[in-house]
This record gives sequence, structure tokens and C-alpha cells, in this order.
Amino acid sequence: MKTFYPKDLPTPNLQAILQSVIVPRPIAFASTVDKAGNVNLSPFSFFNLFSANPPVLVFSPSRRVRDKSTKHTLENVLEVPEVVVHIVGYDLVEQMSLASTEYPKEVNEFEKAGLTAVKSDLVAPPRVKEAPVALECKVLEIKSLGEEGGAGNLVICEIIRVHIDEKILDENGMADPHKLEPVARLGGSWYSKVIPESLFQIPKPLTTLGIGVDQIPSEIRNSPVLTGNNLGRLGNVEILPSEEEISAFSQTGEIVDMRIRFQNDQDSWIDHLHRWAKEELEKGNIDLAWKILLQKP
Amino acid sequence: MKTFYPKDLPTPNLQAILQSVIVPRPIAFASTVDKAGNVNLSPFSFFNLFSANPPVLVFSPSRRVRDKSTKHTLENVLEVPEVVVHIVGYDLVEQMSLASTEYPKEVNEFEKAGLTAVKSDLVAPPRVKEAPVALECKVLEIKSLGEEGGAGNLVICEIIRVHIDEKILDENGMADPHKLEPVARLGGSWYSKVIPESLFQIPKPLTTLGIGVDQIPSEIRNSPVLTGNNLGRLGNVEILPSEEEISAFSQTGEIVDMRIRFQNDQDSWIDHLHRWAKEELEKGNIDLAWKILLQKP
Repeated sequence: MKTFYPKDLPTPNLQAILQSVIVPRPIAFASTVDKAGNVNLSPFSFFNLFSANPPVLVFSPSRRVRDKSTKHTLENVLEVPEVVVHIVGYDLVEQMSLASTEYPKEVNEFEKAGLTAVKSDLVAPPRVKEAPVALECKVLEIKSLGEEGGAGNLVICEIIRVHIDEKILDENGMADPHKLEPVARLGGSWYSKVIPESLFQIPKPLTTLGIGVDQIPSEIRNSPVLTGNNLGRLGNVEILPSEEEISAFSQTGEIVDMRIRFQNDQDSWIDHLHRWAKEELEKGNIDLAWKILLQKP
Repeated sequence: MKTFYPKDLPTPNLQAILQSVIVPRPIAFASTVDKAGNVNLSPFSFFNLFSANPPVLVFSPSRRVRDKSTKHTLENVLEVPEVVVHIVGYDLVEQMSLASTEYPKEVNEFEKAGLTAVKSDLVAPPRVKEAPVALECKVLEIKSLGEEGGAGNLVICEIIRVHIDEKILDENGMADPHKLEPVARLGGSWYSKVIPESLFQIPKPLTTLGIGVDQIPSEIRNSPVLTGNNLGRLGNVEILPSEEEISAFSQTGEIVDMRIRFQNDQDSWIDHLHRWAKEELEKGNIDLAWKILLQKP
């Protein structure tokens, strides 16, 4: 491991390293106005949802590392404590990036980015017509984290009005990640987009109490074939197959054949069982994997 | 657009919708201890980096929607204001998910998830040996966002010691997203992993002042061929090709041939130019794209 104290690094280096490890970061594309009505639109990746009741999101416009200066977005929410936070999909990412250009304050990034400003329902800043999600927010509090270059400012916002493009919703009224195709920030100039090949599901273990990896027999737990993910999935079951189930499975053709084939080769028997169980685990067949793993030679 | 007031939805529905749109969320895999030394390890996706100087991350263990109860992690940081936040790659995701099981307080999720506890340098909670990134933190403040079910609690943490597995670093000492292969939470039971096909780069427009989409000639800006991303990239240049460059390019064989081929068909001439420019834009050849787009028939 490379181990260090953050204070031993110059801020630009520390910021670059931390931004490369706390990833992927969702992007708040934030519309704000100053007292004079000048509009600002800028993306921030120090951002997330933090509460559902009340519905609260937080984003941070940091002081610039090079000169400690603050961003127009921060100045605006200090003057007019309202913001529209948009989530953008891959089809808007270049326009969003262009909006992060440090134009002078009087420049409207909606125009620079070629996006359409639509009047919001409850707040002064306009929303981006092209964005699939727009969250009208009132700012509850702005919490400064420091005065130096690189210091964050938590802009703590309550979501008071929600707009979601119906085209990205699934049949249950939730955003379908395949349709939203959201983008995220990583370190350096890296971005990622959510694509079908990047998506997977893990059922939430909220209502179950899995036996845990510690209760998996040591021969299985220490298998050179099974990965941590395989063990995690095995440990998520609440109950192992019964003796009857294991015994019934031991009479199936495949097991009977294997038992004959490897009758004088215990290592190969175990290796084959574990590889087969691994395949089944990765197909989601957890109970079957357990029945395979618990076979006796 | 589907538009609604958050207060008009039952909390579980609102939470589900917001969690499906504020995506992808990075995951804090947090190790904490109570006063008696009982260890807890649990993942949280209401989490991000928020400041580089001081280095601050925030995560939120919410009150459970079903009964307003608090999580062991929150109780622990109220007793011992220290935490180790880990970032995990895809190879630990099933064990991380297993650790989110609601085991009784005396149960150590390191054991349940089959992970190895290593003594931290500066804080009481142990760190996960298998995690590629471990951030030892002291808790600066815990900010409650409400008392109802679904209310968040901002655990505002200063990073005081950093451990990064050298295997995930690139030649500049930054985490390489291809090696870290980080995972993120989306709505429902969806996760995403960062894979090579999901990664792309956009140079940061920090030192440039692009002309903006509003300065792109209307015939190009309103092209049915060019997308918002294409326009965003075109608007990111600081200066257009000179008359001399455009004129020189107009003498190339491809343009000369096109001019003859479409001399009586203005629409096809434009369509061809725009499609060609689009291809070049998507290859990153922005100056060439501009020279194509600015050709006269």
C-alpha cells in the first residue's frame, strides 16, 4: 500500500489523487441566478443525494486551488438561495463540459452551451429544457469548509419540485438507467457513462440474515477457485440445503459420473465441484451451487 | 415531463425515485466502532468527496424509512467520531453487499463478509485489508437532516491518512479507473461498474474560453445531422480556422470532387459536409471538422 498524510501533499496533487479514488461521482448541473438576474449554469461532481425525508441533496462549489477565488454559482446561491440541479445523460455531456468554462459573470452559460432556458415553477433560476431530470431546490444552508484554495462549500438543498422526462421512466415510474444513460466524473479528464454492459443487479439483503462467509465450511471458504464475490453470494443464503436435498442431488447423472471419474483423485474432484459451483453462482443459481459444493466423494 | 411535489409522495416512493435519478452514486464502505470496541462495517451510497483543502468527505447513514430507527454506523460515530471509508472495486462488491445485512450490533461484519481487519494508523476502527483504497477519517461534525424515517445524517469527515493499493495506480500516481474498476449504486437493485467501454475523456476547458454554441453559424447550429455533443465540441474552440486555412482545404481532392458531384444539389452538399464533420468530431478532429463545415459550395 502507498500510505501518506494528506497534509504532506501540495493541494493540487492531493485533490487530483482524491478525485481519482472517490469515484464515480455523479454530476449536478446547477442553474443559479444573482440578485440582478444574471443566470449561471455549471457542473459540479462534489454532489449527491443525502436524505429522502426531507429530500436533500448537497453539492460543493470549491474555492479554486490556484487563487482561493469562489465560483459564480457559490456567489449566486449566497445572493439568491435557490438552485435547479439537473442530471444529464451522455447526449448532453459535451454541452455540460462547455458550460464549465470560466466565462465572465455576465455571460449566460445556457447560451454558450446552446441549451434552452425554461422558467422554473417555484424558484428563480431557469431550468434546462434538454435535461432529463431537473430538481428545483431551495438552499437550506451553505456550510463553508475552509478559506484556502480547494476548500469546499456544502450547499445543502431541499428538493421542492421534481421534473423527470417520461421517456427515461420504466413501467414502475423509476428512472431506467438504460434510458437515462447517466455520466459520472472520475479523476483527471476521465468520465464514465452507464452502459448496458456496465450494469448489474444485486438483490438487497434487507430482509434476510445471510449465514455469512464465516459460516461457510473452511474447505469451501479457502477454495483457490472461488472468489470473494462467489463467497459473498454463498454467505448471503439464510439456510443451507437439507441433507435430503444434498442426497437427492448426489444421485443425479452428472454427480454419479464425476464420482466414478475422480474416485482416486480427491483434488480433482474438489476442483471440478468448485468450478461447476462457480459457474452456477455467476448465473445466479445459489441454491444449486450450494448443493454442488456440499457433495461428498 | 412528469412533474410533482416531493411532499405529495409517500417517502418510500420518493426515496426510490430520487435514488433512480441521482446516479451513479459512489459507495463509502465504512468501518466504525462503538465505545465497547464492537466493529461495524457497512456500505453507504449517499457519499462523496466535498473538499480537497481541508480534505473532506461526507456520507449519510439515513434513518430507516420503515421505523425511523438509526443505523449502527451512526450510533458508532456518535460514540467514537472516527471512521475508515473504503472504496471498493468490482471484485469486492458481493462481500460489500453482504455487509449491508442488518445483523445485530454485536456481530462483526468483517467476519460475516469474510474480510480481513487490519489495525488503522490513526483511528480506532480497523481497515479492510482487501480494499484498494482506505481513508482514515476523523468526524468533524454530524448534521442531522431530520427525525423522520428517511432523514439523512451528514457525517462530515476530514481525511487524515490515506492508503492506496499501488496496483491500482498509474505512472503519475493517480488511481487508474481501469485497474480500480469502481462500482456505484443506481436505483432499485442496480449497480454499475466502470469498465473500459464506459470510459471516455473530455479535456477540461479550464484554461480556454470556447466561442460557445451561440457563436456557431446558424446553418451549422441548426443542422439535423449534428448532435448537442457535436455542437458542444465545436463551441469549445477559441478560434475558427482562418480564411486561408479554409481556402487551402477547399482545394483538396475530396472537397473538389464533392463540389462537382453536388453542384446542383445544395441540400446534399450540406448533408455530406455535416456527416463528414460529425465523423471527424467524434474522432476528436475538431479543427478539421470546422474546416469541413465552413466550406462554400
